[in-house]
This record gives sequence, C-alpha cells and structure tokens, in this order.
Amino acid sequence: MERSISPDSVMLLKTAQAAGVTTAWDRYETQLPQCGFGETGLCCRHCLQGPCRIDPFEVTGPKNGICGASADVMVARGLARSVAGGTASHSAHAKHLAHTLLKFSRGEATDYGIKDQAKFYAVLDRVGIARNGKSDQELAGELAQLALDEFSEREETPVWLKTTVTPGRMTKFEELGLIPPGLDSAVAEVMHRTTNGVDADAVNILLGAIKCAIGDYTGMYLATDLSDILFGTPTPVMASANLGTLKENAVNIAVHGHNPVLSEIIVAEAMGMEQEAQAAGASEGINLVGICCTGHEVMMRHGIPTATNSLSQELAIVTGALDAAVVDYQCIMPSLPDVAARYHTAIITTMPIAKITGATHVQFEEHNAGEKAREILRLAIEAFKKRDPTRVNIPPVTNDALAGLSAEAIVNVLALVNPDDPLKPLIDNIVNGNILGVCLFAGCNDVKVTQDKTFVELVKALAAENVLILCTGCAAGSFARHGLLTPAATQKYAGDGLKAVLTALGQAAGLDGPLPLALHTGSCVDNTRAAGIAVALANKLGVDISQLPVVATAPEAAMEKAVSIGTWAVAMGLPTHVGVVPPVTGSPVVVEVLTKAAKDLLGGYFIVEPDPQAAVAKMVAALKERRKGLGI
Amino acid sequence: MERSISPDSVMLLKTAQAAGVTTAWDRYETQLPQCGFGETGLCCRHCLQGPCRIDPFEVTGPKNGICGASADVMVARGLARSVAGGTASHSAHAKHLAHTLLKFSRGEATDYGIKDQAKFYAVLDRVGIARNGKSDQELAGELAQLALDEFSEREETPVWLKTTVTPGRMTKFEELGLIPPGLDSAVAEVMHRTTNGVDADAVNILLGAIKCAIGDYTGMYLATDLSDILFGTPTPVMASANLGTLKENAVNIAVHGHNPVLSEIIVAEAMGMEQEAQAAGASEGINLVGICCTGHEVMMRHGIPTATNSLSQELAIVTGALDAAVVDYQCIMPSLPDVAARYHTAIITTMPIAKITGATHVQFEEHNAGEKAREILRLAIEAFKKRDPTRVNIPPVTNDALAGLSAEAIVNVLALVNPDDPLKPLIDNIVNGNILGVCLFAGCNDVKVTQDKTFVELVKALAAENVLILCTGCAAGSFARHGLLTPAATQKYAGDGLKAVLTALGQAAGLDGPLPLALHTGSCVDNTRAAGIAVALANKLGVDISQLPVVATAPEAAMEKAVSIGTWAVAMGLPTHVGVVPPVTGSPVVVEVLTKAAKDLLGGYFIVEPDPQAAVAKMVAALKERRKGLGI
Repeated sequence: MERSISPDSVMLLKTAQAAGVTTAWDRYETQLPQCGFGETGLCCRHCLQGPCRIDPFEVTGPKNGICGASADVMVARGLARSVAGGTASHSAHAKHLAHTLLKFSRGEATDYGIKDQAKFYAVLDRVGIARNGKSDQELAGELAQLALDEFSEREETPVWLKTTVTPGRMTKFEELGLIPPGLDSAVAEVMHRTTNGVDADAVNILLGAIKCAIGDYTGMYLATDLSDILFGTPTPVMASANLGTLKENAVNIAVHGHNPVLSEIIVAEAMGMEQEAQAAGASEGINLVGICCTGHEVMMRHGIPTATNSLSQELAIVTGALDAAVVDYQCIMPSLPDVAARYHTAIITTMPIAKITGATHVQFEEHNAGEKAREILRLAIEAFKKRDPTRVNIPPVTNDALAGLSAEAIVNVLALVNPDDPLKPLIDNIVNGNILGVCLFAGCNDVKVTQDKTFVELVKALAAENVLILCTGCAAGSFARHGLLTPAATQKYAGDGLKAVLTALGQAAGLDGPLPLALHTGSCVDNTRAAGIAVALANKLGVDISQLPVVATAPEAAMEKAVSIGTWAVAMGLPTHVGVVPPVTGSPVVVEVLTKAAKDLLGGYFIVEPDPQAAVAKMVAALKERRKGLGI
Repeated sequence: MERSISPDSVMLLKTAQAAGVTTAWDRYETQLPQCGFGETGLCCRHCLQGPCRIDPFEVTGPKNGICGASADVMVARGLARSVAGGTASHSAHAKHLAHTLLKFSRGEATDYGIKDQAKFYAVLDRVGIARNGKSDQELAGELAQLALDEFSEREETPVWLKTTVTPGRMTKFEELGLIPPGLDSAVAEVMHRTTNGVDADAVNILLGAIKCAIGDYTGMYLATDLSDILFGTPTPVMASANLGTLKENAVNIAVHGHNPVLSEIIVAEAMGMEQEAQAAGASEGINLVGICCTGHEVMMRHGIPTATNSLSQELAIVTGALDAAVVDYQCIMPSLPDVAARYHTAIITTMPIAKITGATHVQFEEHNAGEKAREILRLAIEAFKKRDPTRVNIPPVTNDALAGLSAEAIVNVLALVNPDDPLKPLIDNIVNGNILGVCLFAGCNDVKVTQDKTFVELVKALAAENVLILCTGCAAGSFARHGLLTPAATQKYAGDGLKAVLTALGQAAGLDGPLPLALHTGSCVDNTRAAGIAVALANKLGVDISQLPVVATAPEAAMEKAVSIGTWAVAMGLPTHVGVVPPVTGSPVVVEVLTKAAKDLLGGYFIVEPDPQAAVAKMVAALKERRKGLGI
C-alpha cells in the first residue's frame, strides 16, 4: 500500500528509509497481520481471568468470554471504553483551560488575560452569569468555577450542553436518559459499567457510551469557548503548510500536541528571543511551526504554518532541520526521542501527565509561563547549534492555507452579504440548491490507509456535488498540505452552485477570489464550532439538527478521541461517515445499533465505508434524503 | 487442573456436566490457550491503528507499537486502565450510597434512615462536620454533600483520605504528587494519560495509576462509612455458608452483587412476605442467601448465609432450588440468564447501569425502595411455583461461619480485655511474639486456579506461623465454605501463640472457645476496615503503616477491583501478595517498579507468587523483616 500522497511525506519517507530511521509506517508493517480478534472487537481484558477471545465466525472457537459475555457485550464494552478515553482527553484539555482562567482570575497567571472580551461577554451571557458591575477578573473566576463544576456529577444538566444544542435535542437526550452526569463522572461511569460483571446488555452499554460522548461534546464546546476567551476567537488568516515551511536559516521549533495554554506563550515569547537565535547563527531567527492540533490552534490565531500532523510527525525530525519539538499532550508519538536521537532535535515534554522516556522534561506551569517558555526556547536554540547542515533536507513543498474560519468568522463573512440576517444567505443557497448540504471533515490520519488519500478524494468529490466543506484538525492539515484551503482549489474543484456561493462570499470579504474549498474551522477540539453553526441553522429554521442536510466524516480516523467525537456527532443527529472500520464488526447488534437503530432513535447514524466513491455516494444520498425531508 | 476444592462446587460441577450446563470453568477451557500477548500485557488497543502486539521475547516480532510505545509503556498503560476500572467501580458504589443518604436527608427515601447513630456521629466528627443543634436529617445532608464533593476535582485533599491515613503516609503522598484530584477525576485522568500519544513514560504512568488507586482507597473508606451509618456497623454474628444453605421447602432468593442499598430493603421486606411464600407452597417461607459481596453485606449485618461467591455463582442455579437471583452490580456473570433458562430461576437486574440481556429488569429506586423490593420478592415467589422438585439437588454441605468483625467490633472485643486501652492487648501480643503479624486476605476466586485451594493452603500455613488473619469478600466466602470462620478451625490450625490470643479474646467475648481462625471483616469494599485497624496501630505506636508487620494477599485475584485494591495496599505501605500473575510480565520496568522500587518509594510492594508454599515463606519473611525494623 502506498504510504502517503502528501508530497513532503513521500520525500521524507525515502530519506528516513535511506537513513535507517524507523517510522510509524515501518512499525505498522511489523505489526501485520494484526490480531483479528482485536480488529473485530472480540478480545476482552477487563479482568485478570482473560484475555478472552470470541471466534468471529462462531464456528469452532468460543462464543462467549469466561464470564459469559457475548460477542455483542464484548464489543460494546470495548467501544464504550474507547469513548471514555476520548472523552477523558477532551475533558482534560477543557479542564486545563478552566484552571488557567481560574488562576488568571486570582492573579496567579499574569501571562494570561481576557484576549477576546466580546466572546467572553457572549459566553457569560449564554451560560447565565450576570455581568453587572463585576470586573473581568471576577467574572473570569465565576466562569472558571462554573466550567469546573461541569466535570462533577450534579443534578443539573451541564450548562455547556443545555445552552448549546437545539431544544429538540435536549428533549430527546432527556427522554433517552442521555444527559451526562458530569464530564469526569461520565467517564468513570463507563469504566464501571464495562468492568467484569456490571453491564451485560449491549444496547444498554452503547447508550452509556453515547451519554459519555455527549459529555465529550460538552467538554469540547467548553474548551473552545475558554480558548477563544483567553487567546482570541480566530479570524481569517493566511498561513502556509507542509514541511517546506521549515527554514534552513532559522531555529525551527514545532509546537505539537493539542492545548494552546503553552503554545500561546511560546508564540508571545519567541519574538523577544529573535536576537538570541540570530546570535546562535540562525540568520532568520526563530521559525515557529505547528504539528497536530497545537499547530492548528496557533495557525488559527496567528497564522503560524502547519508543518505536518500526527501520522507524519516523525518526518519533521527527518528533515534534519527541526531543532525542537515542544509537546503538550495527545497524539504525540512515544517514538519521538528515538528518532530525535538520530538527529540533533530536542524533544521537550512539558506536562506532568505526559512524559516520554528519553525526552527532556520542562515542567510547565501557568504561574511562570513566560519564564518556562523562554527556558524551552533556549533549549531549542542550543539544539540548533548542534544541527548538522549536511543532513538538512527540507522538502521544497509549501502551500498557502487560509485558516481562522471560526463559527464567528463564518457568520461575520455571511454578515457582509446580509448584515441583518447573516444566516439567510446560507439558508437561501441551501434551499435553492446551490449548496446541496454541509459536510464536516474531521478525524485523524491513520496508518492503515494511505495518508491523505481518502481525505482528498472525498473532499474533491463532495465539493463537486456542491457540498459546503468545513474541516478541523488533521482533516484541515491534510487539506492544507494539498493546497485545498485556497481560492484556487475552489475554482478547480467546486461544483457551479458552490463556486458561485463561495465566490460571492469571497468577494464580499474582499478576497481576490472565492473562499477556500474547505473552511478551516479549528483544531479537533473545535469540532463543536461546526456543531454550533448547525445548531444556529436548525434553530433559525425551527427544526432539529437531525433534519438538516449536514453530514460529518472522519475518513482516516485513528484515535479514541475520534471515536467519541463520531459518537456525539451521531447523537447530535448527523449521518457520520468513518473510512476506517472500527473494532465493532464482531458484534451484529453493535453494528446494527450504530448504523441503523441509531437513525430511528437519534436521527444520526454511522456510515462505515472505506471506499471513497461509495462513501461519497452514501453521504450525498444522506444529504438528499434530508433535503427531501425538509421539502427542498 | 482440579476446578474447585469447595465440596458444594465439586458436587454441582458434576450435576452441571450431566445436565449439559456450561459454566465459567467450561468457558475457560474453550479459551485455552489464552493469548500470550494479552497475558503478558503486550497488546494495546488504545487507538484504531491497533491492535498492536509486542514480541515478549523481543526476538523476531515487533519491539514497539505503531505509535512507538515500548513494552514498558504498553504494559503500564494497560495496568493503569485496570486500576481506573477498579476505582470507578468502588467509587460508583460509594457515590450510590452518598446519593441514598442525600435522598434520605431530603425526605425522598423514607425506607432508609440513620441506623447507627454512634458511627454517624463518629464519622461526622472525623470529617469535621459540626453537630451542634442540627437534626440528623440536616447532618445527613451535609455529610452526603461532603461525600459527593470527594468525586470532583478540587484543590483540597479528599477528606476521606486525609482523615484516615497516618500523618507519615499523607506526607509521602504529598511529596510524591499522589493525592488524587477527586475520585471520578482520578479515573478520567488515567483514561486521558493512557490514550494514544499522552503519557509515554512507564514510571510516570505507574505513579498515575497509584494516585488513582489512592482514590480507590478513599472511595472504599467512604462507602464503608456510609453503609455502616445507613445500615448499621456489623457486630459479631453467627451465620452459615455453602450452597447447602438453600432450602428445599423455601422460596430461595439470592441477593448478589455488591451494594447493600437494595439488599437491605429486601431483607426488611422479606419478613412481611413470608405468608405469601407459604401460600405459594413454600412451607419454610422465604430463605434469603447471599452471593458475592452483597451477600457479605447482609451476612455481616443480619447473619444471612453466604451461599457462594463469584466464580461459582452459576452453580447456585444448578441446585435447581434457587428461585431468584436479585443482582445489583459487579462480578455478576452475563451468563446467568443462559443458565437460568435451563431451570426456573428468575434473574432480576435492578440497576440502570447493569442490565443483562435475557434477564428481567426491575428498576430499583430509593424513593420507592420497599415497593420495588416487594415486587422483586413476588417475582421470586412466582418463579418458585415453577420449580421442578425432581431437579432439586442441594448439596448437603453447610458450615458455621462467624461474621460481623468490623474494625469497631474487633476493638470492642479487645476492649473486653483492656477497656482503657483496647489496642494494647493486640500490640502486646505482637511485641511478645504470640502474634507474628497480621495478614489481610482479600480478592476473588479466579478460574485460572483451583477454586479456594490457594486461599485454604495459605491461611492454614500462615495461621500455623501465628499470623492473625483478617479477611473480606471472596476470601471470607472461601474460608466460610471450608469451616475456617469457626473456633474449631482456630483449635485445629492456629499456632500456639495465636491460639492463646484468640482463645483469650474468645473467652472475654463470652464465646465457647477462641475467636475464628480468620476474622470476617466485611465485603470487598470493606478492605478499608482492615486498613483502619492498621492505621490505628501505626498511630498508636507513632510509626507508619509501612513499618508494621502487616501484609495483604489476594491469592486468587480476578477483577480490576482487585488490581486497584492491591495497588493501594502497596501505596499504603503493605507487602501485597498476588497469587495469579497479572498481565505485566511483558515489561521489565513495570515488574521492577511494582515488586522492588515501590518498596523504597512507598514501603509497600507486590509479591507475585502463584506457589502457596513459596508465598507463605515470602510473606512470613516480610513480616519478620518488619519486626526486625521495629526491634521486636
């Protein structure tokens, strides 16, 4: 199988091979063939009596685990724990931001502040905190406390849930018992019900998983709100992509991971360190780039280039030009120190819960953020001095990439067309068929499929069908690497209706052409931005999200976070495509519930389809079915 | 391998075989050989790119997962998630009791009350709630709220941790960063740090797991406190054991699972239903028995017989005489409805998070507890009517079993010898060598080893070495089934020093002989009762628990809960024996940390030793080493 269609990845994979550097793709090959029990979800290690495995064909092998768990129960348990892992990750990210806001409010994090007062006030109003007469610092304290309360089991519905979804969804969630009991508590509940001898009804376990995933949505929405308040709501910004954004004559530092709490300070402090970098011999000073979602956070807010993302993170080191990778948490390969040991790159971990054996750990804390950021930048400058110029091999590939299209930014662009009723132009164009529907591209790259291939095929095909594309995280990174976040891509690939709309909007926005083919809406955790747009549309039309011609796709999903996001997308009512088969095929009941019964129950459902053409057909059919339902 | 040495199990396994009924032992055989990757912990499914497996011999197979995770990281991740599963289970149990107490305080659970005011006041005083002038109902509300706050991430140390351990332990936990951030939050934190690309340092992951396990301890202590307040602190009670406690002429109802919230009401309501049972033809009315820890809860407080426990739960149905199994959660085999389908037994699930496909679900809620209990009892009476008398095959085996030896009960017995200083007789006898040390027996039965064999061999050998034995949960159940919770067992198996002490205490307590060979301290969740005794001894001596001649053992551990309990036992400073090899042998670092480095760090450490004789030698050596350290 072809490893990647990303030109920089292709080049550097050759370099890695020549240098004898092992990458994730190599390790994947050593894992082949992968265990069929694990692949189908028919393996359980939730007690010490296991591992238990069930024969997927139920021919000669066992039909039940030792405890009696059926294939359905075993698969549902495993899936639920994946959702718990994903929810725990996003929730921790959100909680981290809430703590930062709390410390700011107490004067204990002086390097942070309220960067976007309009968003701050909008969020305060939405969550019901009265502003009268209170200082921003006081209000920040109240907001942070309200946010932290979301993690605990309470009798109240989580505020970031009930204030952000349609009334119809809330009613449905209440009726089905799907209100999460608090974000951390939802994770703990799944862990309890999936241990030996607790929940043994696959459908009940799946409902528990969905409840947890609704907690995931809640935490993600919260995370985005707090990031915008602390660091600014993104506005359109022209940036660039690919590993060609590394510079031969600069200290190249990649911020990598997911949380902007550290990277924002790195960005702020880097300016003051330019001279130190130059003194060390880097004529172009410091060149910050991003990897993964930390990269998207700083791309969205500062136009920092996105160098690459999770699957190809090791290749950034293989350029020989990366002086430091500063990592926070999530999607960071434990292999980085091994690869870096072959070069001069400093791998700097920063979070107490995310150390890597072999890396340099600089404990980051908000109260001395600037100081720690400077310490980290100095480690990068030191590493630069050890760079071997003869091994520098930066692929000559960069692409422009328009980013910064937060929900607010999209509404602002629409308001240029209709200031009184910004959503009207979008709705009108959906009704008149210029736009067939909307698709949110999300999720990861996955070593099991050719990097970027499904992303690129799907987006071109859907755009040709006049589907308006939003994207986040690795999907946005993938599109950026292939020049698809540009007006030119719209010209080339969009269907006539979509092109007309994007052109009109681009002109209104003063761009020299249409809006990009895909609107870069943020990092993974910002998928709720897209949900926010869908909710606004639904509320305006007086319908539920499950009636809108909106679909989601994670064509190359890899992480537990993608499983939890996909699950809440279904819960929100979206047909949700996944291009990698998740480990559920061992259970007829789980497959049936996720792909069919969920539709009756929630409106949303999973479309599992690895073939890009078939996936496009199914998503287009889903959009048309929704249009028909609305009588348009 | 011999399946069981429990005489009733042995008999009924033959019956099951003759009837073609499949049990856990049969299913275990279909699983053999079990997957070597899973057995050594070298399998990871924490993202969709997996399953990844590492060659345990690192010869030809992969040395790393796709992400780069080493064997050490992979094993540590898996172990940490087991601890999270165990902690989530005990915490949910504790939270359930806190909610019940809260509902009582609000007048919403009128079938509940403060049953033990002395314990209520003692707990209020310990946790720092001022009693002055407040009603019990008000105080219950305050206590319930304080308890519920323990689950949330806060800046304060959990109250049930800091008020129950030695000052030395607290200092150590603070120094090592091991204070859990709140019980649910501790679980969520482990789930986050073990997902793809977060924590990749095995030692750091293990510290995270230990922190979570300290949360497990906290939740368990809380659970026991609240159970005692709501249902009474156990006092010595003579009960009986084995499946021979089922009665041919009674409606036999087993309460099974872990939480007394429902079973206490069943016990209370059963009396009023005797006539209905008799009217249905059961001349002896209703016969309640217990399975697993729900059984131990009602045995400790009401002398209800313990029929059997987790591994042999199916055999209760195979007697043909069990009319209903009323289950709450944890350790309940999903197979029960399948086995019951061959008989007349009603399997009644009661908790929203623990349904079983094929069972009858009666949703239990505290506000109408009595009504629901009567509904459940009526289902059992209905099932009795369908019983086939020709298939009744109750093994003629029962044993007496003295239970109810809560920490308070043990202190009360000691106070009969020395009212002014109850702990002094115990300490004196440890110092003078009559008692070599103390061993807590805990944990499960595990299908991988002959049921009860290791339990029985270990306890006899340790008692012969004058080790004072405490036991909980399945350990207590095992001892009960073999007549070891009796004065006669002490006469037969205790060493002279231990026998002298137990005889003196038994005489003081007005028993016609010594205290039993093993003191039944409660259900699994009550392991903290034993910890409480150890803390009291340590505080009285002005030392830390890690210096006391106290060890713990889970010779037949099976559940994730056992993993988390074992881990906190180590954190508390106890040498902790496990007789089943946990899935960690694939990691030299994890093995080293758990069995050796932990000793330097925490005083406690794991002793993994399947061979009973070798295990006894190691535990005795550990006790002697501690004695030497204390100069006794």
